[in-house]
Amino acid sequence: MSANGVSAAGKVLRVLAVFDREHPSRTLSEIARSAGLAVSTAHRVVAELAAWGALERAEDGSWHVGLRLWEVASGCPRTQILRDAALPFMQDLYEATHENIQLAVREGTELVFVERIAGHRSVDLLTMVGTRFPVASTGMGRVLLAHAPREFQDEVLAEPLRSWTPHTVTDPRTLRAQLDLIRREQVFVSDRQLSESTVAVAAPVRIGRSGPVSAALGIVVAARGAERARGLREPLLRAVHGISEELGRRARTAL
Amino acid sequence: MSANGVSAAGKVLRVLAVFDREHPSRTLSEIARSAGLAVSTAHRVVAELAAWGALERAEDGSWHVGLRLWEVASGCPRTQILRDAALPFMQDLYEATHENIQLAVREGTELVFVERIAGHRSVDLLTMVGTRFPVASTGMGRVLLAHAPREFQDEVLAEPLRSWTPHTVTDPRTLRAQLDLIRREQVFVSDRQLSESTVAVAAPVRIGRSGPVSAALGIVVAARGAERARGLREPLLRAVHGISEELGRRARTAL
Repeated sequence: MSANGVSAAGKVLRVLAVFDREHPSRTLSEIARSAGLAVSTAHRVVAELAAWGALERAEDGSWHVGLRLWEVASGCPRTQILRDAALPFMQDLYEATHENIQLAVREGTELVFVERIAGHRSVDLLTMVGTRFPVASTGMGRVLLAHAPREFQDEVLAEPLRSWTPHTVTDPRTLRAQLDLIRREQVFVSDRQLSESTVAVAAPVRIGRSGPVSAALGIVVAARGAERARGLREPLLRAVHGISEELGRRARTAL
Repeated sequence: MSANGVSAAGKVLRVLAVFDREHPSRTLSEIARSAGLAVSTAHRVVAELAAWGALERAEDGSWHVGLRLWEVASGCPRTQILRDAALPFMQDLYEATHENIQLAVREGTELVFVERIAGHRSVDLLTMVGTRFPVASTGMGRVLLAHAPREFQDEVLAEPLRSWTPHTVTDPRTLRAQLDLIRREQVFVSDRQLSESTVAVAAPVRIGRSGPVSAALGIVVAARGAERARGLREPLLRAVHGISEELGRRARTAL
Protein backbone atom coordinates (compact mmCIF):
# COMPACT_ATOMS: atom_id res chain seq x y z
CA MET A 1 0.00 0.00 0.00
CA SER A 2 1.22 3.49 -0.78
CA ALA A 3 0.83 6.51 1.50
CA ASN A 4 -2.67 7.35 0.25
CA GLY A 5 -3.93 3.82 0.83
CA VAL A 6 -4.31 2.67 -2.79
CA SER A 7 -2.27 -0.37 -3.77
CA ALA A 8 -0.34 -0.29 -7.05
CA ALA A 9 -2.73 -2.86 -8.48
CA GLY A 10 -5.59 -0.65 -7.36
CA LYS A 11 -4.07 2.26 -9.24
CA VAL A 12 -3.94 0.22 -12.44
CA LEU A 13 -7.61 -0.65 -12.06
CA ARG A 14 -8.54 2.95 -11.25
CA VAL A 15 -6.84 4.09 -14.45
CA LEU A 16 -8.58 1.42 -16.54
CA ALA A 17 -11.93 2.34 -14.99
CA VAL A 18 -11.83 5.91 -16.37
CA PHE A 19 -12.40 4.52 -19.88
CA ASP A 20 -15.87 3.56 -20.99
CA ARG A 21 -18.11 3.87 -24.03
CA GLU A 22 -18.93 7.49 -23.11
CA HIS A 23 -15.23 8.30 -22.52
CA PRO A 24 -13.25 6.22 -25.00
CA SER A 25 -10.45 8.81 -25.09
CA ARG A 26 -8.84 10.72 -22.18
CA THR A 27 -5.95 13.11 -21.63
CA LEU A 28 -3.43 12.39 -18.89
CA SER A 29 -4.87 15.10 -16.66
CA GLU A 30 -8.41 13.73 -17.13
CA ILE A 31 -7.13 10.26 -16.24
CA ALA A 32 -5.45 11.59 -13.08
CA ARG A 33 -8.53 13.55 -12.02
CA SER A 34 -11.05 10.76 -12.73
CA ALA A 35 -8.86 8.11 -11.09
CA GLY A 36 -8.17 10.32 -8.06
CA LEU A 37 -4.41 10.04 -8.54
CA ALA A 38 -1.58 12.59 -8.64
CA VAL A 39 -0.61 13.42 -12.24
CA SER A 40 2.88 12.00 -11.64
CA THR A 41 1.38 8.73 -10.38
CA ALA A 42 -1.10 8.56 -13.26
CA HIS A 43 1.77 9.20 -15.69
CA ARG A 44 3.75 6.26 -14.30
CA VAL A 45 0.78 3.87 -14.37
CA VAL A 46 -0.24 4.96 -17.89
CA ALA A 47 3.33 4.41 -19.13
CA GLU A 48 3.33 0.91 -17.69
CA LEU A 49 -0.08 0.13 -19.23
CA ALA A 50 1.07 1.55 -22.58
CA ALA A 51 4.27 -0.53 -22.58
CA TRP A 52 2.11 -3.64 -22.19
CA GLY A 53 -0.43 -2.54 -24.84
CA ALA A 54 -3.41 -2.00 -22.50
CA LEU A 55 -3.46 1.68 -23.46
CA GLU A 56 -2.46 3.37 -26.72
CA ARG A 57 -1.74 7.02 -27.46
CA ALA A 58 -3.55 8.89 -30.24
CA GLU A 59 -1.87 11.48 -32.46
CA ASP A 60 -3.41 14.29 -30.38
CA GLY A 61 -1.68 12.88 -27.26
CA SER A 62 -4.83 11.51 -25.63
CA TRP A 63 -5.02 7.92 -24.40
CA HIS A 64 -7.44 5.12 -25.22
CA VAL A 65 -7.84 1.39 -24.59
CA GLY A 66 -5.36 -0.61 -26.64
CA LEU A 67 -5.85 -3.61 -28.87
CA ARG A 68 -4.08 -5.97 -26.46
CA LEU A 69 -6.52 -5.32 -23.62
CA TRP A 70 -9.37 -5.76 -26.09
CA GLU A 71 -7.92 -9.13 -27.13
CA VAL A 72 -7.61 -10.34 -23.52
CA ALA A 73 -11.14 -9.19 -22.73
CA SER A 74 -12.65 -10.67 -25.89
CA GLY A 75 -12.23 -14.07 -24.20
CA CYS A 76 -14.72 -13.12 -21.44
CA PRO A 77 -16.86 -16.30 -21.33
CA ARG A 78 -20.06 -14.59 -20.22
CA THR A 79 -20.10 -12.61 -23.43
CA GLN A 80 -18.22 -14.98 -25.70
CA ILE A 81 -20.05 -18.29 -25.20
CA LEU A 82 -23.34 -16.41 -25.38
CA ARG A 83 -22.38 -14.47 -28.51
CA ASP A 84 -21.05 -17.57 -30.28
CA ALA A 85 -24.26 -19.47 -29.60
CA ALA A 86 -26.55 -16.54 -30.37
CA LEU A 87 -25.04 -14.91 -33.45
CA PRO A 88 -26.31 -17.29 -36.16
CA PHE A 89 -29.85 -16.98 -34.76
CA MET A 90 -29.47 -13.21 -34.48
CA GLN A 91 -28.38 -13.17 -38.14
CA ASP A 92 -31.53 -15.04 -39.14
CA LEU A 93 -33.68 -12.55 -37.23
CA TYR A 94 -31.84 -9.61 -38.77
CA GLU A 95 -32.26 -11.00 -42.23
CA ALA A 96 -35.98 -11.53 -41.68
CA THR A 97 -36.54 -8.04 -40.23
CA HIS A 98 -33.58 -5.70 -41.03
CA GLU A 99 -34.13 -4.22 -37.57
CA ASN A 100 -31.78 -3.90 -34.57
CA ILE A 101 -31.24 -7.29 -32.94
CA GLN A 102 -29.78 -7.04 -29.43
CA LEU A 103 -28.46 -9.40 -26.79
CA ALA A 104 -28.05 -8.32 -23.15
CA VAL A 105 -27.21 -9.78 -19.75
CA ARG A 106 -28.02 -8.59 -16.23
CA GLU A 107 -25.18 -7.38 -14.01
CA GLY A 108 -26.55 -6.47 -10.60
CA THR A 109 -29.30 -3.88 -11.09
CA GLU A 110 -28.07 -3.01 -14.58
CA LEU A 111 -28.41 -4.35 -18.09
CA VAL A 112 -25.26 -4.71 -20.21
CA PHE A 113 -25.59 -4.99 -23.99
CA VAL A 114 -23.18 -7.66 -25.23
CA GLU A 115 -24.06 -7.84 -28.93
CA ARG A 116 -25.98 -5.90 -31.52
CA ILE A 117 -26.72 -6.46 -35.17
CA ALA A 118 -27.89 -3.45 -37.15
CA GLY A 119 -28.03 -2.55 -40.81
CA HIS A 120 -28.38 0.57 -42.89
CA ARG A 121 -32.13 0.56 -42.46
CA SER A 122 -32.31 -0.10 -38.69
CA VAL A 123 -33.54 2.69 -36.39
CA ASP A 124 -30.89 4.60 -34.36
CA LEU A 125 -30.75 3.61 -30.70
CA LEU A 126 -29.64 5.06 -27.36
CA THR A 127 -28.02 1.77 -26.41
CA MET A 128 -24.60 0.52 -27.52
CA VAL A 129 -22.62 -2.68 -27.03
CA GLY A 130 -20.67 -2.36 -23.79
CA THR A 131 -23.06 0.18 -22.25
CA ARG A 132 -25.24 -0.21 -19.17
CA PHE A 133 -28.81 0.81 -18.45
CA PRO A 134 -30.94 0.44 -15.31
CA VAL A 135 -32.52 -3.01 -15.63
CA ALA A 136 -36.09 -1.69 -15.28
CA SER A 137 -35.75 0.90 -18.04
CA THR A 138 -35.72 -1.29 -21.14
CA GLY A 139 -37.88 -4.12 -22.44
CA MET A 140 -34.95 -6.52 -22.41
CA GLY A 141 -34.10 -5.48 -18.86
CA ARG A 142 -37.66 -6.08 -17.67
CA VAL A 143 -37.54 -9.57 -19.16
CA LEU A 144 -34.38 -10.25 -17.14
CA LEU A 145 -35.94 -8.66 -14.06
CA ALA A 146 -39.06 -10.81 -14.44
CA HIS A 147 -36.89 -13.93 -14.25
CA ALA A 148 -34.57 -12.65 -11.50
CA PRO A 149 -34.97 -13.85 -7.87
CA ARG A 150 -37.87 -12.22 -6.01
CA GLU A 151 -35.57 -10.48 -3.47
CA PHE A 152 -33.83 -8.84 -6.38
CA GLN A 153 -37.10 -7.60 -7.92
CA ASP A 154 -38.05 -6.15 -4.54
CA GLU A 155 -34.76 -4.28 -4.39
CA VAL A 156 -35.25 -2.70 -7.83
CA LEU A 157 -38.91 -1.87 -7.16
CA ALA A 158 -38.06 -0.23 -3.81
CA GLU A 159 -36.02 2.45 -5.59
CA PRO A 160 -37.65 5.31 -7.56
CA LEU A 161 -38.07 4.27 -11.21
CA ARG A 162 -36.75 6.77 -13.75
CA SER A 163 -39.21 8.19 -16.27
CA TRP A 164 -37.55 8.21 -19.69
CA THR A 165 -40.67 9.10 -21.70
CA PRO A 166 -44.30 9.99 -20.83
CA HIS A 167 -45.04 6.28 -21.43
CA THR A 168 -42.47 4.85 -19.01
CA VAL A 169 -44.03 2.73 -16.27
CA THR A 170 -42.80 4.20 -12.98
CA ASP A 171 -45.44 2.87 -10.58
CA PRO A 172 -43.96 -0.17 -8.79
CA ARG A 173 -47.29 -2.00 -8.60
CA THR A 174 -47.91 -1.61 -12.35
CA LEU A 175 -44.36 -2.77 -13.04
CA ARG A 176 -44.77 -5.80 -10.77
CA ALA A 177 -47.94 -6.79 -12.63
CA GLN A 178 -46.01 -6.39 -15.86
CA LEU A 179 -43.28 -8.72 -14.58
CA ASP A 180 -45.97 -11.37 -13.85
CA LEU A 181 -47.31 -10.91 -17.38
CA ILE A 182 -43.80 -11.28 -18.84
CA ARG A 183 -43.29 -14.61 -17.05
CA ARG A 184 -46.64 -15.91 -18.36
CA GLU A 185 -46.40 -14.67 -21.94
CA GLN A 186 -42.65 -15.23 -22.62
CA VAL A 187 -42.50 -12.32 -25.08
CA PHE A 188 -42.78 -8.71 -23.92
CA VAL A 189 -43.58 -5.73 -26.15
CA SER A 190 -42.04 -2.63 -24.56
CA ASP A 191 -43.80 0.37 -26.06
CA ARG A 192 -41.75 3.65 -26.02
CA GLN A 193 -40.48 2.97 -22.49
CA LEU A 194 -36.90 4.19 -23.05
CA SER A 195 -37.36 6.44 -26.10
CA GLU A 196 -40.38 8.05 -27.80
CA SER A 197 -39.16 6.70 -31.12
CA THR A 198 -38.68 2.99 -30.42
CA VAL A 199 -40.63 -0.12 -29.50
CA ALA A 200 -38.82 -3.27 -28.36
CA VAL A 201 -39.89 -6.89 -28.41
CA ALA A 202 -37.91 -9.00 -25.94
CA ALA A 203 -37.73 -12.61 -24.74
CA PRO A 204 -35.59 -14.62 -22.32
CA VAL A 205 -32.67 -16.82 -23.43
CA ARG A 206 -32.25 -19.91 -21.21
CA ILE A 207 -29.51 -22.47 -20.78
CA GLY A 208 -31.37 -25.41 -22.28
CA ARG A 209 -35.13 -25.51 -22.97
CA SER A 210 -36.17 -25.03 -19.35
CA GLY A 211 -32.92 -23.99 -17.64
CA PRO A 212 -32.10 -20.70 -15.92
CA VAL A 213 -32.47 -17.43 -17.83
CA SER A 214 -29.01 -16.21 -18.86
CA ALA A 215 -29.75 -13.34 -21.25
CA ALA A 216 -32.46 -11.45 -23.10
CA LEU A 217 -32.84 -11.14 -26.85
CA GLY A 218 -34.63 -8.14 -28.30
CA ILE A 219 -35.71 -6.62 -31.60
CA VAL A 220 -36.03 -2.84 -31.60
CA VAL A 221 -38.17 -1.15 -34.24
CA ALA A 222 -39.31 2.42 -34.91
CA ALA A 223 -42.34 3.36 -32.76
CA ARG A 224 -44.40 4.01 -35.90
CA GLY A 225 -43.93 0.29 -36.60
CA ALA A 226 -45.43 -0.79 -33.27
CA GLU A 227 -48.02 -3.04 -34.90
CA ARG A 228 -45.19 -4.70 -36.77
CA ALA A 229 -43.47 -5.36 -33.41
CA ARG A 230 -46.37 -7.58 -32.36
CA GLY A 231 -45.85 -9.65 -35.52
CA LEU A 232 -42.26 -10.28 -34.44
CA ARG A 233 -43.23 -12.43 -31.44
CA GLU A 234 -43.09 -15.72 -33.31
CA PRO A 235 -39.71 -15.25 -35.05
CA LEU A 236 -38.26 -13.95 -31.75
CA LEU A 237 -39.54 -17.01 -29.86
CA ARG A 238 -38.04 -19.34 -32.48
CA ALA A 239 -34.69 -17.56 -32.11
CA VAL A 240 -34.58 -17.69 -28.29
CA HIS A 241 -35.55 -21.38 -28.35
CA GLY A 242 -32.75 -22.06 -30.82
CA ILE A 243 -30.19 -20.15 -28.74
CA SER A 244 -31.39 -21.76 -25.49
CA GLU A 245 -30.99 -25.25 -26.94
CA GLU A 246 -27.55 -24.40 -28.28
CA LEU A 247 -26.47 -23.07 -24.86
CA GLY A 248 -27.87 -26.21 -23.23
CA ARG A 249 -25.86 -28.39 -25.63
CA ARG A 250 -22.69 -26.44 -24.87
CA ALA A 251 -23.30 -26.59 -21.10
CA ARG A 252 -23.77 -30.38 -21.26
CA THR A 253 -20.61 -30.78 -23.36
CA ALA A 254 -18.63 -28.73 -20.84
CA LEU A 255 -19.67 -30.96 -17.92
CA MET B 1 9.38 -2.62 -7.37
CA SER B 2 9.24 -5.80 -5.32
CA ALA B 3 12.19 -8.08 -4.56
CA ASN B 4 11.89 -10.04 -7.81
CA GLY B 5 11.87 -6.90 -9.93
CA VAL B 6 8.20 -6.94 -11.03
CA SER B 7 6.15 -3.90 -10.04
CA ALA B 8 2.68 -4.43 -8.61
CA ALA B 9 1.19 -2.97 -11.78
CA GLY B 10 3.33 -5.39 -13.75
CA LYS B 11 1.92 -8.28 -11.73
CA VAL B 12 -1.63 -7.21 -12.59
CA LEU B 13 -0.76 -7.15 -16.28
CA ARG B 14 1.03 -10.51 -16.07
CA VAL B 15 -2.08 -12.06 -14.54
CA LEU B 16 -4.35 -10.54 -17.20
CA ALA B 17 -2.02 -11.77 -19.95
CA VAL B 18 -2.52 -15.44 -19.04
CA PHE B 19 -6.07 -15.23 -20.41
CA ASP B 20 -6.66 -15.45 -24.15
CA ARG B 21 -9.06 -17.09 -26.59
CA GLU B 22 -7.18 -20.39 -26.27
CA HIS B 23 -7.16 -20.14 -22.44
CA PRO B 24 -10.40 -18.41 -21.41
CA SER B 25 -10.43 -20.20 -18.04
CA ARG B 26 -7.53 -20.82 -15.62
CA THR B 27 -7.02 -22.24 -12.14
CA LEU B 28 -5.07 -20.22 -9.60
CA SER B 29 -2.03 -22.48 -9.92
CA GLU B 30 -2.12 -22.15 -13.72
CA ILE B 31 -2.32 -18.37 -13.35
CA ALA B 32 0.67 -18.35 -10.98
CA ARG B 33 2.74 -20.61 -13.25
CA SER B 34 1.92 -18.79 -16.51
CA ALA B 35 2.45 -15.37 -14.93
CA GLY B 36 5.71 -16.43 -13.28
CA LEU B 37 4.45 -15.44 -9.83
CA ALA B 38 4.39 -17.19 -6.46
CA VAL B 39 0.96 -18.73 -5.76
CA SER B 40 0.52 -16.42 -2.74
CA THR B 41 1.25 -13.36 -4.92
CA ALA B 42 -1.03 -14.57 -7.69
CA HIS B 43 -3.76 -15.17 -5.09
CA ARG B 44 -3.50 -11.59 -3.82
CA VAL B 45 -3.55 -10.07 -7.33
CA VAL B 46 -6.45 -12.28 -8.45
CA ALA B 47 -8.44 -11.28 -5.35
CA GLU B 48 -7.88 -7.60 -6.14
CA LEU B 49 -8.87 -8.10 -9.80
CA ALA B 50 -11.96 -10.06 -8.75
CA ALA B 51 -13.06 -7.39 -6.27
CA TRP B 52 -13.01 -4.87 -9.14
CA GLY B 53 -14.75 -7.22 -11.59
CA ALA B 54 -11.85 -7.78 -13.98
CA LEU B 55 -11.89 -11.49 -13.14
CA GLU B 56 -14.81 -13.73 -12.14
CA ARG B 57 -14.80 -17.16 -10.55
CA ALA B 58 -16.67 -20.09 -12.12
CA GLU B 59 -18.51 -22.73 -10.08
CA ASP B 60 -15.58 -25.13 -10.51
CA GLY B 61 -13.27 -22.58 -8.85
CA SER B 62 -11.43 -21.57 -12.03
CA TRP B 63 -11.04 -17.92 -13.04
CA HIS B 64 -11.98 -16.09 -16.23
CA VAL B 65 -12.18 -12.54 -17.54
CA GLY B 66 -15.08 -10.65 -16.00
CA LEU B 67 -17.79 -8.57 -17.57
CA ARG B 68 -16.38 -5.29 -16.22
CA LEU B 69 -13.04 -5.70 -18.01
CA TRP B 70 -14.93 -6.63 -21.17
CA GLU B 71 -16.98 -3.43 -20.85
CA VAL B 72 -13.89 -1.25 -20.43
CA ALA B 73 -12.17 -2.94 -23.36
CA SER B 74 -15.23 -2.75 -25.62
CA GLY B 75 -14.49 0.98 -25.92
CA CYS B 76 -11.16 0.28 -27.70
CA PRO B 77 -11.40 2.78 -30.58
CA ARG B 78 -9.30 0.76 -33.03
CA THR B 79 -11.89 -1.98 -32.96
CA GLN B 80 -14.97 0.05 -32.12
CA ILE B 81 -14.90 2.84 -34.71
CA LEU B 82 -14.00 0.29 -37.36
CA ARG B 83 -16.71 -2.17 -36.32
CA ASP B 84 -19.39 0.53 -36.13
CA ALA B 85 -18.55 1.74 -39.64
CA ALA B 86 -18.13 -1.74 -41.11
CA LEU B 87 -20.99 -3.76 -39.62
CA PRO B 88 -23.87 -2.57 -41.84
CA PHE B 89 -21.77 -3.29 -44.95
CA MET B 90 -20.70 -6.64 -43.50
CA GLN B 91 -24.39 -7.44 -42.94
CA ASP B 92 -25.15 -6.70 -46.59
CA LEU B 93 -22.32 -9.00 -47.69
CA TYR B 94 -23.47 -11.73 -45.33
CA GLU B 95 -27.01 -11.50 -46.58
CA ALA B 96 -25.86 -11.71 -50.19
CA THR B 97 -23.56 -14.69 -49.57
CA HIS B 98 -24.36 -16.41 -46.22
CA GLU B 99 -20.61 -16.97 -45.89
CA ASN B 100 -18.16 -15.86 -43.16
CA ILE B 101 -17.49 -12.14 -43.37
CA GLN B 102 -14.37 -11.08 -41.46
CA LEU B 103 -12.68 -7.84 -40.51
CA ALA B 104 -9.05 -7.73 -39.34
CA VAL B 105 -6.32 -5.23 -38.51
CA ARG B 106 -2.54 -5.56 -38.50
CA GLU B 107 -0.72 -5.42 -35.17
CA GLY B 108 3.03 -5.64 -35.78
CA THR B 109 3.70 -8.82 -37.75
CA GLU B 110 0.36 -10.30 -36.80
CA LEU B 111 -3.22 -10.11 -37.94
CA VAL B 112 -5.97 -9.65 -35.31
CA PHE B 113 -9.55 -10.51 -36.19
CA VAL B 114 -11.83 -7.82 -34.79
CA GLU B 115 -15.23 -8.88 -36.16
CA ARG B 116 -16.85 -11.85 -37.79
CA ILE B 117 -20.31 -12.50 -39.12
CA ALA B 118 -21.25 -16.11 -39.67
CA GLY B 119 -24.50 -17.99 -40.02
CA HIS B 120 -25.68 -21.58 -39.75
CA ARG B 121 -24.54 -22.32 -43.29
CA SER B 122 -21.08 -20.70 -43.16
CA VAL B 123 -17.98 -22.94 -43.29
CA ASP B 124 -16.11 -23.54 -39.96
CA LEU B 125 -12.89 -21.56 -39.64
CA LEU B 126 -9.59 -21.75 -37.74
CA THR B 127 -9.80 -18.05 -36.96
CA MET B 128 -11.84 -16.38 -34.20
CA VAL B 129 -12.49 -12.81 -33.13
CA GLY B 130 -9.71 -11.77 -30.77
CA THR B 131 -7.19 -14.28 -32.14
CA ARG B 132 -3.91 -13.55 -33.92
CA PHE B 133 -2.30 -15.12 -36.95
CA PRO B 134 1.02 -14.40 -38.67
CA VAL B 135 0.23 -11.64 -41.16
CA ALA B 136 1.58 -13.58 -44.16
CA SER B 137 -0.50 -16.69 -43.49
CA THR B 138 -3.97 -15.50 -44.50
CA GLY B 139 -5.43 -13.72 -47.50
CA MET B 140 -6.56 -10.79 -45.34
CA GLY B 141 -3.10 -10.60 -43.78
CA ARG B 142 -1.41 -10.51 -47.18
CA VAL B 143 -3.67 -7.64 -48.23
CA LEU B 144 -2.54 -5.72 -45.14
CA LEU B 145 1.09 -6.71 -45.78
CA ALA B 146 0.84 -5.52 -49.41
CA HIS B 147 -0.16 -2.07 -48.15
CA ALA B 148 2.32 -1.96 -45.23
CA PRO B 149 5.56 0.06 -45.47
CA ARG B 150 8.31 -1.62 -47.55
CA GLU B 151 10.64 -1.99 -44.56
CA PHE B 152 7.92 -3.94 -42.80
CA GLN B 153 7.39 -6.27 -45.79
CA ASP B 154 11.15 -6.91 -45.86
CA GLU B 155 11.07 -7.86 -42.20
CA VAL B 156 8.27 -10.39 -42.67
CA LEU B 157 9.82 -11.82 -45.85
CA ALA B 158 13.22 -12.22 -44.15
CA GLU B 159 11.75 -14.74 -41.69
CA PRO B 160 10.87 -18.33 -42.73
CA LEU B 161 7.23 -18.48 -43.88
CA ARG B 162 5.14 -21.21 -42.29
CA SER B 163 3.58 -23.79 -44.56
CA TRP B 164 -0.02 -24.37 -43.42
CA THR B 165 -1.10 -26.49 -46.41
CA PRO B 166 0.66 -27.92 -49.51
CA HIS B 167 -0.64 -24.80 -51.32
CA THR B 168 0.82 -22.19 -48.93
CA VAL B 169 3.24 -19.81 -50.66
CA THR B 170 6.48 -19.99 -48.66
CA ASP B 171 8.98 -18.68 -51.22
CA PRO B 172 9.68 -15.03 -50.40
CA ARG B 173 10.08 -14.02 -54.07
CA THR B 174 6.73 -15.57 -55.03
CA LEU B 175 5.10 -13.87 -52.06
CA ARG B 176 6.64 -10.50 -52.98
CA ALA B 177 5.26 -10.83 -56.51
CA GLN B 178 1.89 -11.64 -54.98
CA LEU B 179 2.02 -8.48 -52.86
CA ASP B 180 2.65 -6.44 -56.06
CA LEU B 181 -0.35 -8.14 -57.67
CA ILE B 182 -2.53 -7.39 -54.62
CA ARG B 183 -1.70 -3.66 -54.80
CA ARG B 184 -2.58 -3.59 -58.54
CA GLU B 185 -5.75 -5.68 -58.42
CA GLN B 186 -7.30 -4.51 -55.10
CA VAL B 187 -8.96 -7.85 -54.45
CA PHE B 188 -6.96 -10.97 -53.60
CA VAL B 189 -8.23 -14.55 -53.84
CA SER B 190 -6.31 -16.64 -51.31
CA ASP B 191 -6.67 -20.27 -52.37
CA ARG B 192 -6.28 -22.82 -49.50
CA GLN B 193 -3.32 -20.94 -48.01
CA LEU B 194 -4.28 -21.41 -44.34
CA SER B 195 -6.57 -24.47 -44.56
CA GLU B 196 -7.20 -27.12 -47.23
CA SER B 197 -10.90 -26.52 -46.87
CA THR B 198 -11.21 -22.76 -47.33
CA VAL B 199 -10.69 -20.04 -49.94
CA ALA B 200 -10.70 -16.37 -48.91
CA VAL B 201 -11.39 -13.24 -50.94
CA ALA B 202 -9.92 -10.15 -49.31
CA ALA B 203 -9.65 -6.41 -49.97
CA PRO B 204 -8.24 -3.37 -48.15
CA VAL B 205 -10.40 -0.95 -46.13
CA ARG B 206 -9.09 2.63 -46.29
CA ILE B 207 -9.81 5.78 -44.31
CA GLY B 208 -11.58 7.67 -47.09
CA ARG B 209 -11.50 6.72 -50.79
CA SER B 210 -7.73 7.03 -51.18
CA GLY B 211 -6.53 7.28 -47.57
CA PRO B 212 -4.27 4.90 -45.67
CA VAL B 213 -5.25 1.22 -45.37
CA SER B 214 -6.63 0.59 -41.88
CA ALA B 215 -8.08 -2.92 -42.10
CA ALA B 216 -8.87 -5.83 -44.38
CA LEU B 217 -12.29 -7.23 -45.16
CA GLY B 218 -12.60 -10.86 -46.24
CA ILE B 219 -15.17 -13.44 -47.29
CA VAL B 220 -14.23 -17.03 -46.55
CA VAL B 221 -15.93 -19.83 -48.48
CA ALA B 222 -15.48 -23.61 -48.67
CA ALA B 223 -12.63 -24.59 -51.02
CA ARG B 224 -15.08 -26.52 -53.22
CA GLY B 225 -16.70 -23.15 -53.88
CA ALA B 226 -13.46 -21.57 -55.18
CA GLU B 227 -15.04 -20.52 -58.47
CA ARG B 228 -17.77 -18.83 -56.49
CA ALA B 229 -15.09 -16.89 -54.58
CA ARG B 230 -14.02 -15.19 -57.81
CA GLY B 231 -17.60 -14.01 -58.30
CA LEU B 232 -17.44 -12.30 -54.90
CA ARG B 233 -14.88 -9.70 -56.04
CA GLU B 234 -17.47 -7.12 -57.03
CA PRO B 235 -19.69 -7.25 -53.91
CA LEU B 236 -16.54 -7.22 -51.74
CA LEU B 237 -15.21 -4.14 -53.56
CA ARG B 238 -18.53 -2.35 -53.11
CA ALA B 239 -18.43 -3.13 -49.38
CA VAL B 240 -14.85 -1.93 -48.82
CA HIS B 241 -15.58 1.27 -50.76
CA GLY B 242 -18.63 1.87 -48.60
CA ILE B 243 -16.73 1.26 -45.36
CA SER B 244 -13.77 3.39 -46.52
CA GLU B 245 -16.05 6.33 -47.30
CA GLU B 246 -17.81 5.96 -43.96
CA LEU B 247 -14.45 5.90 -42.12
CA GLY B 248 -13.36 8.97 -44.09
CA ARG B 249 -16.54 10.80 -43.10
CA ARG B 250 -16.00 9.92 -39.44
CA ALA B 251 -12.33 10.96 -39.56
CA ARG B 252 -13.28 14.35 -41.09
CA THR B 253 -15.99 14.86 -38.45
CA ALA B 254 -13.50 14.11 -35.66
CA LEU B 255 -11.04 16.77 -36.93
